[in-house]
Amino acid sequence: MYLLVGELINTSRESVKKAVLARDEAFIQDLARRQAEAGIQYLDVNCGDIGTDREEVEAMEWLVTVVRGVTDLPLCIDSPNPQALEAGLALASTPTPMINSITAEQKRYQDVLPLVLKYKAKIVGLCISDEGMPNSVEERERNARWLVESLRGAGVAEDDIYLDPLVKPVSINDQHGVEVLEFIRRFKESFPRVHLICGLSNVSFGLPGRRFLNRTFLVQTMTCGMDAYLLDPTDKDLMRLFYASAALLGKDRFCGRYLRAYRSGLYS
Amino acid sequence: MYLLVGELINTSRESVKKAVLARDEAFIQDLARRQAEAGIQYLDVNCGDIGTDREEVEAMEWLVTVVRGVTDLPLCIDSPNPQALEAGLALASTPTPMINSITAEQKRYQDVLPLVLKYKAKIVGLCISDEGMPNSVEERERNARWLVESLRGAGVAEDDIYLDPLVKPVSINDQHGVEVLEFIRRFKESFPRVHLICGLSNVSFGLPGRRFLNRTFLVQTMTCGMDAYLLDPTDKDLMRLFYASAALLGKDRFCGRYLRAYRSGLYS
Repeated sequence: MYLLVGELINTSRESVKKAVLARDEAFIQDLARRQAEAGIQYLDVNCGDIGTDREEVEAMEWLVTVVRGVTDLPLCIDSPNPQALEAGLALASTPTPMINSITAEQKRYQDVLPLVLKYKAKIVGLCISDEGMPNSVEERERNARWLVESLRGAGVAEDDIYLDPLVKPVSINDQHGVEVLEFIRRFKESFPRVHLICGLSNVSFGLPGRRFLNRTFLVQTMTCGMDAYLLDPTDKDLMRLFYASAALLGKDRFCGRYLRAYRSGLYS
Repeated sequence: MYLLVGELINTSRESVKKAVLARDEAFIQDLARRQAEAGIQYLDVNCGDIGTDREEVEAMEWLVTVVRGVTDLPLCIDSPNPQALEAGLALASTPTPMINSITAEQKRYQDVLPLVLKYKAKIVGLCISDEGMPNSVEERERNARWLVESLRGAGVAEDDIYLDPLVKPVSINDQHGVEVLEFIRRFKESFPRVHLICGLSNVSFGLPGRRFLNRTFLVQTMTCGMDAYLLDPTDKDLMRLFYASAALLGKDRFCGRYLRAYRSGLYS
């Protein structure tokens, strides 16, 4: 029902960047293992901003191999660089991988689409176009519709598409959160079978107490119909709300997963 | 924007019942003071199930007097017994009180309406009729519409009406939460100026980890448009989510109340 992608293996986090540069297997494998044990469906693997394109490709190959050493979870290969995507996908082609991400920018779309088709991958589509970041519900809708129709036209199943509306900080404009919630509601009416995904931390950028805002936004977006997240599955406070929210939304038959999480000690 | 009613002074709580029966002023005043300090708009005062009607009236008079000794907050006089309501209201007529509650049951409606008009009070209306508890979104809508139209027809301003959809446990039916969320969305489309209120604890009855479910339901119902709550304002975890949720919903200009709550130490 919900799809969770563990976000921790990402070189935008300083400790991960250091570990990747130092080829520290133990550090990465620990991160992979702890996320896998927390009960997610995909593991994100990102090594952007690590050097030249060539160096990113090498880092991606190393990362995927190292992660594969400890888990059979499907991977979410994450890069704006098509060569790095291809390198990761080649080593992570089963179970069916996810690609993070395609966009409605013409060049990026054309570069990434062949990989989506080749690997029959699930695809994260960012609602950004050559006109830049979306500035309204309507711009998100326009980019989302273009992505769904283009991907569908190319033969991608709706169930494999995960659109990211792109979340902006409420510290800049206090309507930024509401815009995303309204987009989710409207989009799900038009495309009930296409998935929506987002990360949770952008919304709180520039404010104190960010983790409280992030976990609140998890519940809010779930309430409106978002059904996939890039998140830190080792954050117990967050995961407590996730299972509680799914149960209250009637998306957890007889509250079964909530009760299992409770019995596993998550709530103590 | 949001209206919070402190729920702790209620004889359905065993410690409060004991305090009321023993006429323990200090206990009650401490409860009143701690809730008032937590930043609410109304203080609920309930002494149901305490003995005969006469005894409830006497207890209500005592309670209101004792609470009034420590706070000028407006009171929410809470009883199914019209005599107890009248006794409380007579001693709590300013600032404008709230009455908890009227229903769409014919006798109760006729008994309570004169008090609403006499005290120009805000009124909590439970979406229950002579046919019993509502069993669907549609039954809630029917009772809600009847209450709004009847109260409006009697001269009550929409802004003074707070309808309670009546929340039932998800442990009995995992669609019970969703029914309330759907009701909120639909009702707010028809009556944007009428308020919606609920308590948070019924939803989790019969499940473990109830406080996690209750606070999740706070965020979910806020996301759909509920704007008033009977809650425990001394529950820091709950209040943290309340301020975070209002900020993310764009109902807290420049996140001002969230930042104030943060600086006051709520999040540490």
